[in-house]
Amino acid sequence: MNAPSFLKRLVGSVVPSERRRSHRRARQAMDLFQALLSERGEVSGALVARDALAAYNSLPKPALPSFYDALAAEFSPNREELDAAYNAYHADPSQENLIRLQRCVEAPRQELFRRFNTTPGGTAALVAMRRDMVAGLKTHPEWKGIDADLEHLFGSWFNRGFLTLERIDWYTPAVVLEKLIEYEAVHEIAGWDDLRRRLAADRRCFAFFHPALPHEPLIFIEVAFTKGMSAAIEPLLAPDAPQIDPQSADTAIFYSITNCQTGLRGISFGNLLIKQVAQRLGQEFPRIKTFATLSPIPGFRSWLRGIGTQLKDLPGGAAQLDALARIENPDWHKDEANAERVRKVLIPYAAYYLAHAKQDREAADPVARFHLGNGARLERLNWLADTSKRGMQQSAGLMVNYLYRLDEVESNHETYVREQKVSMSRDIRRFAAECALATSVDVTAGD
Amino acid sequence: MNAPSFLKRLVGSVVPSERRRSHRRARQAMDLFQALLSERGEVSGALVARDALAAYNSLPKPALPSFYDALAAEFSPNREELDAAYNAYHADPSQENLIRLQRCVEAPRQELFRRFNTTPGGTAALVAMRRDMVAGLKTHPEWKGIDADLEHLFGSWFNRGFLTLERIDWYTPAVVLEKLIEYEAVHEIAGWDDLRRRLAADRRCFAFFHPALPHEPLIFIEVAFTKGMSAAIEPLLAPDAPQIDPQSADTAIFYSITNCQTGLRGISFGNLLIKQVAQRLGQEFPRIKTFATLSPIPGFRSWLRGIGTQLKDLPGGAAQLDALARIENPDWHKDEANAERVRKVLIPYAAYYLAHAKQDREAADPVARFHLGNGARLERLNWLADTSKRGMQQSAGLMVNYLYRLDEVESNHETYVREQKVSMSRDIRRFAAECALATSVDVTAGD
Amino acid sequence: MNAPSFLKRLVGSVVPSERRRSHRRARQAMDLFQALLSERGEVSGALVARDALAAYNSLPKPALPSFYDALAAEFSPNREELDAAYNAYHADPSQENLIRLQRCVEAPRQELFRRFNTTPGGTAALVAMRRDMVAGLKTHPEWKGIDADLEHLFGSWFNRGFLTLERIDWYTPAVVLEKLIEYEAVHEIAGWDDLRRRLAADRRCFAFFHPALPHEPLIFIEVAFTKGMSAAIEPLLAPDAPQIDPQSADTAIFYSITNCQTGLRGISFGNLLIKQVAQRLGQEFPRIKTFATLSPIPGFRSWLRGIGTQLKDLPGGAAQLDALARIENPDWHKDEANAERVRKVLIPYAAYYLAHAKQDREAADPVARFHLGNGARLERLNWLADTSKRGMQQSAGLMVNYLYRLDEVESNHETYVREQKVSMSRDIRRFAAECALATSVDVTAGD
Amino acid sequence: MNAPSFLKRLVGSVVPSERRRSHRRARQAMDLFQALLSERGEVSGALVARDALAAYNSLPKPALPSFYDALAAEFSPNREELDAAYNAYHADPSQENLIRLQRCVEAPRQELFRRFNTTPGGTAALVAMRRDMVAGLKTHPEWKGIDADLEHLFGSWFNRGFLTLERIDWYTPAVVLEKLIEYEAVHEIAGWDDLRRRLAADRRCFAFFHPALPHEPLIFIEVAFTKGMSAAIEPLLAPDAPQIDPQSADTAIFYSITNCQTGLRGISFGNLLIKQVAQRLGQEFPRIKTFATLSPIPGFRSWLRGIGTQLKDLPGGAAQLDALARIENPDWHKDEANAERVRKVLIPYAAYYLAHAKQDREAADPVARFHLGNGARLERLNWLADTSKRGMQQSAGLMVNYLYRLDEVESNHETYVREQKVSMSRDIRRFAAECALATSVDVTAGD
Repeated sequence: MNAPSFLKRLVGSVVPSERRRSHRRARQAMDLFQALLSERGEVSGALVARDALAAYNSLPKPALPSFYDALAAEFSPNREELDAAYNAYHADPSQENLIRLQRCVEAPRQELFRRFNTTPGGTAALVAMRRDMVAGLKTHPEWKGIDADLEHLFGSWFNRGFLTLERIDWYTPAVVLEKLIEYEAVHEIAGWDDLRRRLAADRRCFAFFHPALPHEPLIFIEVAFTKGMSAAIEPLLAPDAPQIDPQSADTAIFYSITNCQTGLRGISFGNLLIKQVAQRLGQEFPRIKTFATLSPIPGFRSWLRGIGTQLKDLPGGAAQLDALARIENPDWHKDEANAERVRKVLIPYAAYYLAHAKQDREAADPVARFHLGNGARLERLNWLADTSKRGMQQSAGLMVNYLYRLDEVESNHETYVREQKVSMSRDIRRFAAECALATSVDVTAGD
Repeated sequence: MNAPSFLKRLVGSVVPSERRRSHRRARQAMDLFQALLSERGEVSGALVARDALAAYNSLPKPALPSFYDALAAEFSPNREELDAAYNAYHADPSQENLIRLQRCVEAPRQELFRRFNTTPGGTAALVAMRRDMVAGLKTHPEWKGIDADLEHLFGSWFNRGFLTLERIDWYTPAVVLEKLIEYEAVHEIAGWDDLRRRLAADRRCFAFFHPALPHEPLIFIEVAFTKGMSAAIEPLLAPDAPQIDPQSADTAIFYSITNCQTGLRGISFGNLLIKQVAQRLGQEFPRIKTFATLSPIPGFRSWLRGIGTQLKDLPGGAAQLDALARIENPDWHKDEANAERVRKVLIPYAAYYLAHAKQDREAADPVARFHLGNGARLERLNWLADTSKRGMQQSAGLMVNYLYRLDEVESNHETYVREQKVSMSRDIRRFAAECALATSVDVTAGD
Repeated sequence: MNAPSFLKRLVGSVVPSERRRSHRRARQAMDLFQALLSERGEVSGALVARDALAAYNSLPKPALPSFYDALAAEFSPNREELDAAYNAYHADPSQENLIRLQRCVEAPRQELFRRFNTTPGGTAALVAMRRDMVAGLKTHPEWKGIDADLEHLFGSWFNRGFLTLERIDWYTPAVVLEKLIEYEAVHEIAGWDDLRRRLAADRRCFAFFHPALPHEPLIFIEVAFTKGMSAAIEPLLAPDAPQIDPQSADTAIFYSITNCQTGLRGISFGNLLIKQVAQRLGQEFPRIKTFATLSPIPGFRSWLRGIGTQLKDLPGGAAQLDALARIENPDWHKDEANAERVRKVLIPYAAYYLAHAKQDREAADPVARFHLGNGARLERLNWLADTSKRGMQQSAGLMVNYLYRLDEVESNHETYVREQKVSMSRDIRRFAAECALATSVDVTAGD
Repeated sequence: MNAPSFLKRLVGSVVPSERRRSHRRARQAMDLFQALLSERGEVSGALVARDALAAYNSLPKPALPSFYDALAAEFSPNREELDAAYNAYHADPSQENLIRLQRCVEAPRQELFRRFNTTPGGTAALVAMRRDMVAGLKTHPEWKGIDADLEHLFGSWFNRGFLTLERIDWYTPAVVLEKLIEYEAVHEIAGWDDLRRRLAADRRCFAFFHPALPHEPLIFIEVAFTKGMSAAIEPLLAPDAPQIDPQSADTAIFYSITNCQTGLRGISFGNLLIKQVAQRLGQEFPRIKTFATLSPIPGFRSWLRGIGTQLKDLPGGAAQLDALARIENPDWHKDEANAERVRKVLIPYAAYYLAHAKQDREAADPVARFHLGNGARLERLNWLADTSKRGMQQSAGLMVNYLYRLDEVESNHETYVREQKVSMSRDIRRFAAECALATSVDVTAGD
């Protein structure tokens, strides 16, 4: 690098110029944002907001960091006013002084975003802005304030009271349906034929929508009506899976739940969605008595790797380690005898992991954390239930049914939140007790 | 009070018991609000919110003050945390410290209200809560913090970007129409027949709605299509006013604009409403070239009373005072000769009042303040334009047309906001210059 | 009239000239109708239909008879073609010959009406045309062909399969609600407040609509939720009647059913309406077990007058006649003792009239004919149940509950249609048997 | 066939038994239809109609002919009544006698179908019934009466006044969109991506719907916004065709129009559809001045084959025949020189064919017949405009623009209908005059 070639120099001179151009574009957009905040009239404000939206939406990708830098730097609270307000409040904690302090502490960015939001398409642009911005948050910790302001606003705007729960089926506009195909995160939708099967008469799909983001699902859940609790995912996903008469079903399996908007990270919708859908289906189909998920155990295998050293020292641990090592071979499950040997060892570990492994006092597995926090009960482990590549890599092919008993979710939730006690079936409890790690903790207590 | 009668003692013993009962009811409701805030799970939270809503909605009127007292007292920021957060921020004004400070400064009431809002009907209950609470604000300044928190939330929730502009006509559900009858503040609607006339083919009515308050207009405006600019209100309000073909009209008269929700005080909707309606009508009826109001001058007569002493000392002031005194007789306008004498004196004062009288650098008349701030122009004074009781008492029967020229509102607004200069017609300027008060100010400059 | 005055001669000369003008207007409209029928292209046809509609709608009332005359005279089948088609069919009854005969027999008016209907507003105009035309049918029997053609078309167009059953409540557009007020034929609606009571939470109102007549109810039914079967109409109609919780009701009372469109005379909607509404309410409110009407007996008193001579000769008839004569005094029911004496005589006659009086093998009372034909059962007679003027004049203040048992209507209907046997309660049967007329017929048989 | 094998005998014995089973099923369904017609009550009628619908819908395909046979045989008019009614009318052609005759001539099947239609799904089943039935009409001429009755009813039910024109785009429910893919008859839609391109911002799609057949387009038309009149179809159909800003377009090209329902054969919708869509687009996009089709000439090559003998005898005919023979080679257009030679000969024949070839006084080409009858003008021939297999086989790769000038369609239509004169551009006229066949007719006159 001592002697830059002509080309390198050329590139060197080009890049800065491009950077300058990006920077200039970002600056122009920012000027409109500044104008928006200083505007006093609502009528002119609406015009400026419209222009600011257009300017932001047409920013090229390379210009975004400059824009976020300016957004982070230029809308902080006024320190002098803040100090004065705090001192006044400190001296006399009156209502007026508190209100004044609250106003001075709020970043002017919040008012900026509220004004920006007045223009049609503003909400969508702000959600997209946060999505793009958080992608760079790790390398730009200075943007944290923007993130906090947007999260605070979104928490207010996307309040559950403003959301509508809508059924999605084959009568739904295509513009919404194509988003299911795009967003589905758990079990990919292969195309329109696949989608149509998932919206057939023995299936249900529900989503939350916000009035300012029409045709944009915030979160959606997929349900299959079955006879008995599903023990494997493939039969549900097969495009040519035979349809059953929904009136003959006794079980509703929630087999996929997808958060659609990265820009709404931190605003939770999922907890209520499951319960509301279960209630609604229970009313429409009184014969359906069982509401359960068919869920992966995404943290299982990486947890398994982490306990290796601990295992070695346990009695019989070496043999178990040896059995567990077999699953490193991607085809381990295809040989029946081999699979059976693995099963005997693996199931207790999976039960133990789900029932007892913790992270910050909560269940270690993220999916378990979600459902147990909702008040569900750990019901059944299903062997070779998801042999897809991801299923094998993360969950060792296992899936679990979390059971939602509407009359128990409240108390399960309470117990889980207050005492970190997990509600589970007798089988799961027994399997977990068989695990070699179980001796170190008291797994029998607290039934 | 030394020797309370038996009755007094009786009352004394009764009232406390009623007060105690009210207080107990308020306390019970408040306990649910406290539970709502401390609840960690969303599912249980939804149930608690529902119960809290029911408890609040069933509070008897006498219990409300106790409830608001508790609401004011029990949800303040934690002072120690606040101090610590401030000190940390003061020492190191990092993003993290600012975010922490912002969180500590926010009254927990805001989170409480956000949770309360998740239950169906929550938004409506909160708007009603503020309406009831502000009615007692003067005697209960300690409730100001509640008011500030609700106003802050509503400012976010009722952002223009979340409102829809809807036409209201005879095809609108009765549940909405009856609210027009109930709310109309400017020119009372006498009943369904009166309303039907105001929604006929040569009229328009538009309102802003919020998705969480279906069937509840937030603000509505009434428009009449006319040939030429209306000079009096009665012909517009008469239930048997002849209809004209809207295609033959050249003018749209905005003759009434009503804010419906006291609970949304301070959240302004009106500015944009007029302009959006004007744009929409301009597109639908290209022949309509004039958009104007027919407005009262509600502050005129009380201002007139206030300038009496000042007038006395002006040359010719006494004679004018004498003429102005005639309008104290409620029937002054019924004698033509008398009315004519009054007219000559009154018009210049009205023009002067609208054009030059100020309060805090803004137009003294509240209606003028609203329209001039919107960028409208003071166009024409109309003599004996509203001889209703209120019209005579407040505006001395005068009405004014504010003209909205879509290509001028921006610059009018700018000039008004920056330089407090009022845009006005040549006639108004001339009348104002004729006013005896005009010598003291420079009314010719700034054209 | 021998020597007509100047004025009379003047009037004489004026009237013909007016008549001529009307005739000319009718002729002009008819020319457009003729053009419409002879038009071969659909595009031009649509224009001509629009013009024909405008011409017809602007015809002054006096011009209508001339127009109907032309409509009757000018669109008859071509006799020569008809004769030829018949002869061909008579000689060879082939499909082709039958089809040809069917075409030749159809009046060209039908094709004319079908073309007229293609233009927006056409359906409404045709329904109005029949309404206006049938009003003069008695004096213009030559218009019967028009009536038959329109009835035939309407029977096809207003097929039940094309109608929608819609609930009407306070969320319904005012343009529909005002039509309820206008049309209600059984128990007049006094205004919007009265209407609101009838649409409250413990009431239901349903109507059939046709897609081509939006906002025009074809028939509507009013239902009250009650505890026990209503025995009088006033408590249901009182605008300040206390509301009950619909979940606490065990009975749905159909207290009014109104055909709205005279122009659709002969096309029946009512039979299905009651049953569909009963089914729908039964699903929504499982606790409601009783579906019944509260109906007048409009033919009762005129029938009573008709049997006078017959009565005189029966044993005890004179005394009964004497008792019955009391109801000629409009205030007969206000004296309790008097009313009681009347009751004893009147009830058996009313029961007999409803249960056994026939006209053309069907129930003599028109309301009984309707409900019994629908499969309802004669359940209970209610004394002094409708003391309104009309109630006293037609039904002697009596009202009857017809009971709709969903599992019996089929068989009741069958028995009534095939054997003219009326389904009735034990009480009604007993009362009818007590009637003096009952000895002449066998009222006990056929149970 | 003299000595039937065992197998044949077996089959012989099997088939009749299957036939018998089909026949029995058809008979059972027909019994319900008979019951439906004889039913007197509407309430029971509705139940019978529901059962009849279910019975018909579950008939296996082989049972349908038996069912149609019964439908043809058992619902004819009563001959004796018909004769009596005719004789009465013949003797006295009064209104009453005519009405009676009309009733006796109508096949009871019509009333049967009207009753069948009252049940939900009835209309769809009848439209499907006609679709299935007409497929066998050639071999079953005895079903013509059924066809005539259904066509008569459908002509009444699907009157233009009952249809709604709806835009179809990406916001339309998938259940409708998949039908476009299924039905598109002119230019096949390859799948959802292809469909999405055809519904993009620079395209429009409109369809007629009937309220009783929700989600079932009756006919739809596809439009592309272009700059200048399209000369070839491939650029419009390519899934990756670049999008243009609709505001920049000056032309709307109707490139596909599809009748969806075989069961509605004979009920025309297309004529009005094009004109209504053109009017609507003209209002929304005032810059679009040209409305034209891009249409195949499906009858061209078969007509060309038919004139061979006639050509041979014309001067120069042999040489032309030789040139025309080249197009029998499927790749003729791929050699430029060859194609150019063909072009010179082919274009005049195509112009002549479109402008002058007749069949029953109308244009010989079915697409020309449709558009010319609508009042369009033959505007431009486009060379190698559709090189798809079908395009080459039917139209020799040629396509034609029919121009819809809204202010001319009326007069064009009139001239075409009355005088069979085709409106055409100067170029088409010139090309047609160059055709060898042109000497035999006077092609220059009448302009």
